[in-house]
Amino acid sequence: MIMEMIKSEGIAQNSYFFGSGGEAVVVDPRRDIDIYLNLSQKHGLNIRYIFETHRNEDFTVGSLELAGVSDSEIFHGAHLDFSYGTAVMEGDTFNVGKLELEILETPGHTHESISIALRDKSVSDDVYLIFTGDVLFAGEVGRVDFFGESETPHMAELLYHSIHEKILPHGDNVILCPAHGAGSVCGADIRDQETTTVGYEKKTNPLLQINKEEFIKRKVEETLYTPPYFKQMELNNQYGAPILNRLPYMPPLNAREFSEFIENGAQVVDLRKPTSFGGGHVPETINIWREGFPAFAGYFLNYDDPILIVDDYDQPHQVWRYLIRLGYDNIKGYLRGGFPEWYMAGKDVAHLDMWSVHQLKKSQENGDEMFLLDVRKINDRRRFHIEGSHHIWVGDIPQMIREIPQDKKIVVYCDSGYKSTIAASILKKNGYSNISSVLGSMGAWLKSGYPVVK
Amino acid sequence: MIMEMIKSEGIAQNSYFFGSGGEAVVVDPRRDIDIYLNLSQKHGLNIRYIFETHRNEDFTVGSLELAGVSDSEIFHGAHLDFSYGTAVMEGDTFNVGKLELEILETPGHTHESISIALRDKSVSDDVYLIFTGDVLFAGEVGRVDFFGESETPHMAELLYHSIHEKILPHGDNVILCPAHGAGSVCGADIRDQETTTVGYEKKTNPLLQINKEEFIKRKVEETLYTPPYFKQMELNNQYGAPILNRLPYMPPLNAREFSEFIENGAQVVDLRKPTSFGGGHVPETINIWREGFPAFAGYFLNYDDPILIVDDYDQPHQVWRYLIRLGYDNIKGYLRGGFPEWYMAGKDVAHLDMWSVHQLKKSQENGDEMFLLDVRKINDRRRFHIEGSHHIWVGDIPQMIREIPQDKKIVVYCDSGYKSTIAASILKKNGYSNISSVLGSMGAWLKSGYPVVK
Amino acid sequence: MIMEMIKSEGIAQNSYFFGSGGEAVVVDPRRDIDIYLNLSQKHGLNIRYIFETHRNEDFTVGSLELAGVSDSEIFHGAHLDFSYGTAVMEGDTFNVGKLELEILETPGHTHESISIALRDKSVSDDVYLIFTGDVLFAGEVGRVDFFGESETPHMAELLYHSIHEKILPHGDNVILCPAHGAGSVCGADIRDQETTTVGYEKKTNPLLQINKEEFIKRKVEETLYTPPYFKQMELNNQYGAPILNRLPYMPPLNAREFSEFIENGAQVVDLRKPTSFGGGHVPETINIWREGFPAFAGYFLNYDDPILIVDDYDQPHQVWRYLIRLGYDNIKGYLRGGFPEWYMAGKDVAHLDMWSVHQLKKSQENGDEMFLLDVRKINDRRRFHIEGSHHIWVGDIPQMIREIPQDKKIVVYCDSGYKSTIAASILKKNGYSNISSVLGSMGAWLKSGYPVVK
Amino acid sequence: MIMEMIKSEGIAQNSYFFGSGGEAVVVDPRRDIDIYLNLSQKHGLNIRYIFETHRNEDFTVGSLELAGVSDSEIFHGAHLDFSYGTAVMEGDTFNVGKLELEILETPGHTHESISIALRDKSVSDDVYLIFTGDVLFAGEVGRVDFFGESETPHMAELLYHSIHEKILPHGDNVILCPAHGAGSVCGADIRDQETTTVGYEKKTNPLLQINKEEFIKRKVEETLYTPPYFKQMELNNQYGAPILNRLPYMPPLNAREFSEFIENGAQVVDLRKPTSFGGGHVPETINIWREGFPAFAGYFLNYDDPILIVDDYDQPHQVWRYLIRLGYDNIKGYLRGGFPEWYMAGKDVAHLDMWSVHQLKKSQENGDEMFLLDVRKINDRRRFHIEGSHHIWVGDIPQMIREIPQDKKIVVYCDSGYKSTIAASILKKNGYSNISSVLGSMGAWLKSGYPVVK
Repeated sequence: MIMEMIKSEGIAQNSYFFGSGGEAVVVDPRRDIDIYLNLSQKHGLNIRYIFETHRNEDFTVGSLELAGVSDSEIFHGAHLDFSYGTAVMEGDTFNVGKLELEILETPGHTHESISIALRDKSVSDDVYLIFTGDVLFAGEVGRVDFFGESETPHMAELLYHSIHEKILPHGDNVILCPAHGAGSVCGADIRDQETTTVGYEKKTNPLLQINKEEFIKRKVEETLYTPPYFKQMELNNQYGAPILNRLPYMPPLNAREFSEFIENGAQVVDLRKPTSFGGGHVPETINIWREGFPAFAGYFLNYDDPILIVDDYDQPHQVWRYLIRLGYDNIKGYLRGGFPEWYMAGKDVAHLDMWSVHQLKKSQENGDEMFLLDVRKINDRRRFHIEGSHHIWVGDIPQMIREIPQDKKIVVYCDSGYKSTIAASILKKNGYSNISSVLGSMGAWLKSGYPVVK
Repeated sequence: MIMEMIKSEGIAQNSYFFGSGGEAVVVDPRRDIDIYLNLSQKHGLNIRYIFETHRNEDFTVGSLELAGVSDSEIFHGAHLDFSYGTAVMEGDTFNVGKLELEILETPGHTHESISIALRDKSVSDDVYLIFTGDVLFAGEVGRVDFFGESETPHMAELLYHSIHEKILPHGDNVILCPAHGAGSVCGADIRDQETTTVGYEKKTNPLLQINKEEFIKRKVEETLYTPPYFKQMELNNQYGAPILNRLPYMPPLNAREFSEFIENGAQVVDLRKPTSFGGGHVPETINIWREGFPAFAGYFLNYDDPILIVDDYDQPHQVWRYLIRLGYDNIKGYLRGGFPEWYMAGKDVAHLDMWSVHQLKKSQENGDEMFLLDVRKINDRRRFHIEGSHHIWVGDIPQMIREIPQDKKIVVYCDSGYKSTIAASILKKNGYSNISSVLGSMGAWLKSGYPVVK
Repeated sequence: MIMEMIKSEGIAQNSYFFGSGGEAVVVDPRRDIDIYLNLSQKHGLNIRYIFETHRNEDFTVGSLELAGVSDSEIFHGAHLDFSYGTAVMEGDTFNVGKLELEILETPGHTHESISIALRDKSVSDDVYLIFTGDVLFAGEVGRVDFFGESETPHMAELLYHSIHEKILPHGDNVILCPAHGAGSVCGADIRDQETTTVGYEKKTNPLLQINKEEFIKRKVEETLYTPPYFKQMELNNQYGAPILNRLPYMPPLNAREFSEFIENGAQVVDLRKPTSFGGGHVPETINIWREGFPAFAGYFLNYDDPILIVDDYDQPHQVWRYLIRLGYDNIKGYLRGGFPEWYMAGKDVAHLDMWSVHQLKKSQENGDEMFLLDVRKINDRRRFHIEGSHHIWVGDIPQMIREIPQDKKIVVYCDSGYKSTIAASILKKNGYSNISSVLGSMGAWLKSGYPVVK
Repeated sequence: MIMEMIKSEGIAQNSYFFGSGGEAVVVDPRRDIDIYLNLSQKHGLNIRYIFETHRNEDFTVGSLELAGVSDSEIFHGAHLDFSYGTAVMEGDTFNVGKLELEILETPGHTHESISIALRDKSVSDDVYLIFTGDVLFAGEVGRVDFFGESETPHMAELLYHSIHEKILPHGDNVILCPAHGAGSVCGADIRDQETTTVGYEKKTNPLLQINKEEFIKRKVEETLYTPPYFKQMELNNQYGAPILNRLPYMPPLNAREFSEFIENGAQVVDLRKPTSFGGGHVPETINIWREGFPAFAGYFLNYDDPILIVDDYDQPHQVWRYLIRLGYDNIKGYLRGGFPEWYMAGKDVAHLDMWSVHQLKKSQENGDEMFLLDVRKINDRRRFHIEGSHHIWVGDIPQMIREIPQDKKIVVYCDSGYKSTIAASILKKNGYSNISSVLGSMGAWLKSGYPVVK
């Protein structure tokens, strides 16, 4: 059998292409579907079935796009009223060459969540692997907080039963194929391992070491962030996103054209690393480093105004894929040749002060006045933080900006200096002027042996 | 300045992408436009202008496709009623960065043919190069036979004037950028050189060594073939072909699905080399070797029935590009894994006898009865042929098949064995059974020192 | 953690690149090591450790090549006197970032065979996966027949203990990373699954369902082929193969140069598919289809005479990698442009008759005299065969050629028509003239419902 | 005929691969020869001849490397005592398929310089194109200052005669294939055009519009820089550089390993753009932006100490090619994951102040004290400069550093901000602390309408 895992970077989403006997199946396809068509031809497998393990909320699923090109049918769980596709129920089976797929209804993350057990009937009747969607990850389980606080205990209980009654009983040997890897916001703390098994999770997954009551308690207490773009994804994935057909073309723009777009309200994202942004940038632009773009763009970009890109590469490698996966079809272009085009045209250049952790330490020791802002996740904050710091999650900055004083020196830190630079760029865009972002942030702070408050 | 020549294989068509100062121009784009978008990003040039040197007849031009994606305008000659684009006139100029383009009306090949003179104004006012479309090639001039026999002398005279009054006067130093290279059917005998100059052509091009009367005489006497698909291309390029958006997806098909398509009237083309076809093939299929596909498919395929592909490669590399360039959007799939899928399914296998030239020679010496069929171009035939052979151009086989006896051994030769195998495959499809195709054909025959009739 | 499996096609060999914390490990590297250097840079991991699970016998290991370029050390089992590297013993551990490797001595396939258990200490002390070398595969166990018939029972017993005492006790959840996949000659019948687990093997591997006595009996009765090149690989891998540094350059040769090499004793392999070879080939050359080349070249090529290649592709894609993996450094070139170069030069062309299974059936029904030769593996032969056929394994043809009558029509079949065409090409090279190879062979025969003798 | 120009970026060097009839020629190959081997296989041409138009001084020629792999012979001019290859003389001819090469002795740039006239004998006896080496470029002629001031007039005269007597007489139509394009230091002001002709140069090349006396005068007055690494290249190219065989492997290093190399005297080059360097960098490292690396590394790096790389990309794309082309085989590695690895480890971070031109203007208007340093080429300086600035060519900074005051604010500008950042990084490494580099520099200054002194 052919089995390929397709990782969508940044959102750490896994889709799967597999097949046997000339037929292929795709699970949770992304919207730029060229990779599945290429795999179809590489392996000589005709795509016939598309499964969605649930209504995905962190990206726009590519099922309609893929079904529009290939001769295939879309399936998903029965407990949501999708505008397209066919509902499947517990115990439904599909035969694909020598493989048999069995539907397992596994609610909890959402009501309509399904898992898919795969048997290789040419080998045995034992389950070989399970596509677990957002039910069970390496080292984690799915989040259950999408339906309001009052529903959370119920969803947690559903998830507990789904895991313990539908997944685990198939045996320690069963390979798990979850919809997300490390870094995804769909699980609090997914482990950095591509492959895992029922048995390894039973031994090591902290959420599988506790009883139902404890499990529900832990899930209820869990604090997770929900980027605002999830709302749009839910609409896209329930009612169907626009068909793209072609990967969007981002034209290279010169400084004059770029300025015109800005004057007309464009949203500009600078994809460069924090030090590059610090050394010089187009005024009033947001910095989200390239690899973090898929995870953070959805907090700060809207779906209406044109989107422009600044990069250090000459060409904006991959970013249009990231954008359309998040449903942003309002892409207008990028600064040709990167940021130098901007200053070579004599345009104004803004800077951001980048501090090392040693500068921060020294400044604290000097007793310099500052508003030290911690933009890490609340869970990380809770474990320890730098003394005297205030906390606002980077994604909450736009809504909570009034809590940050305008008249003080602001010093922002996060885990590494990436998120702190996002935050700093947003503060600058909002009129704050005396800001530093700390390179290395908590990571370097700890490496340097500096103290934290636990 | 940036200057890129894009060669479309098989039809030997050249399109050009060039630019300066952030803007790019495309001349005679092909229909699979991804290459221009990639060049746009590679060079940081925004595509603004699309020129068609004339209504192309050998491929579907990609102007509308490209203009639909980029922020660009389409221009062509004034003397044809196009359904899209803007007409340009003698002396019109366009400024692109430091470059200046000047329109030269150069009728002859067609009425609306234009050439485009390019000056690099940052260097001098001298013409640097000329895009000559189908007016002047390396070692050749354009064909003038598209408007009926009675019009040919007039078109030849127009062409003579276009060359001698519009192109040559710009000076021996001027570089020529024609729309076709060696192998194109748009010129009788284009030389195999990518770059040439006005001066080199004046010294070496046989058509530039003669006076007007002789020129017209030569052009009137010229015998060139017009593949039937040209009709469709002329319609596509005057009124606009359907927009594709996405490169078509060809699904891999198993033997059963493939058979079903055949039973329902599909056209099957086998892209393998003659020896592969000879050793075994799907019965009643046409063999056109991969590299010859763009040049010969248009003689034998219609625009209505589904098109299927057999290949030796596992994946049908490039062929969908060839097809859409010729306007064939009726692509349905290919035999997955290549020809072995067919016979592994127990399907019937047909063969074609492949002869070496030595077998042919021996058979002739033995006095074996045969109908020796020469399917080369009439011009090649006129120079010399193998004694006792009959001539029908490969492209004319379908219409002239009744001239070939059904009850005799048929032996087909061409220049190399490729076209003879096309011909043989068509004869087999039409019920002829005792056929051989000669590997190496005239090339090997001459190399072996065997006699020809001049 | 990073984990990459590198599959070497044809010999179905798996090497592994993995790492953590800036350091990388390679297990059983192949000789064209560029892929590991690329992975090193892709993942930012410095290669520090190279492990050989055993002295490989089916390819030339790239350990010395890789250690010569990187700053790394080579390790292997203690129970063989290697000319290079460092011996490791049961229980030795290595720390690589957060990973811990533990050596398990697992003799049976060879005396010095080791397996390597990997723990992710950041997760738990449980074994996460085991590199099992040639000890345990998906659906199979290693072969134990390399040390002579008298040693086989002992080696089988060692293997049994290695599996049951060293591998299986680590738990059903443990992922297995074997050195070979389906198609390898290092196991009789390896399953076509990339990933498996201890538990799944315990449930499904036929060799794990039986007791020790039965296990030994089964292994002793097992009939496996040993290609002659294994001898050379064993020398290479015990004493060190020549360092290549650069991937060899195969020059394109014209027909004249090619002929000269042949006259001087070159070994010519035609990589094309059977039908291509059938339709025409360079006389007295061996046909081994491209994908089968790694598995079959070692039966027929020697290490002294120059090796030349004929292909249908214009360029001999990948074949020089296949050759150096087998230790063939005597590569001299390929026919430029493929087989047509040969016949275009007027050279003599040979043919091979390709039969469909229907022709074979009909010929049998007609009572035509023939010597029907079955060249499949003896195990496949034993299950069923076509009535009246004689059996010689394709790899044994050179040594057993005298058993094949020179004066009869020879019809060769195998599983699909690939191996039968190898056999037919060798017979032709040895002076046999009236030969047919059966396209589709047993596969198509069965699909057509024709009878077999069980 | 096949003709491919291979551009080596940064040094703007052109090598040529061409051929006919199965044989190929390479002119002035670079040291990473894989591209020629790939072209050989792509076009089915066996490399037989390697020509060096002269002893190149700006890169290490790859002739020996290429001849060691292919079956080819090396040729160069007779008037230098090379340790390898064969001398050719005026009028020597070589036949390659239908092509004829004729040697033209064209001294001036060096004594042994040759040009090569190419005729396509299948077309005519006229010269089709000339490889002009460093004799004649688009818009320029070769430099003549390598043999000491006293020799320059004589070399200039030789060059004049070579151009006027050997190149130009072949006719306006002749295509020119020079060894360098725009950006090379081997000509003062080469035009940005890939293709030119004798006639176009006669019309537009400023050096061809003047008589001999004026020509010599102009060449004598010409001020060109000679990077110190040229000395090593001359030795390499006269006596033969070490054979590499394999492209060097640069291992990814962690911050600790990187530090250790630095402590032991490694030379560290930061390839990032000026703004990235400004925002943060490893202390005491040199910044040379990636694209400028080939042109500037040779001023600042020695051949003995290990070379390390810092980049923004995760992998050091291409830089090892640049290094070996300049003969730097002492490559030791790069910071894995780029600069963040450094600060994440808590290492100290240095900054460089990046100014916009507006900051410079304002500071001047404020009457701030500063030492304004212009590091542009002397020729550019002579045309105009910013008032109050001092001039030292960037390449001369190491030798003339004492002319720069240690106690003043230093502000550096160049044409664009790239070279000024090189200069600033060297000043910082030498203990200067109060430095700014001007983004956009003269380009942005002029675009902003600020005044210059002419």
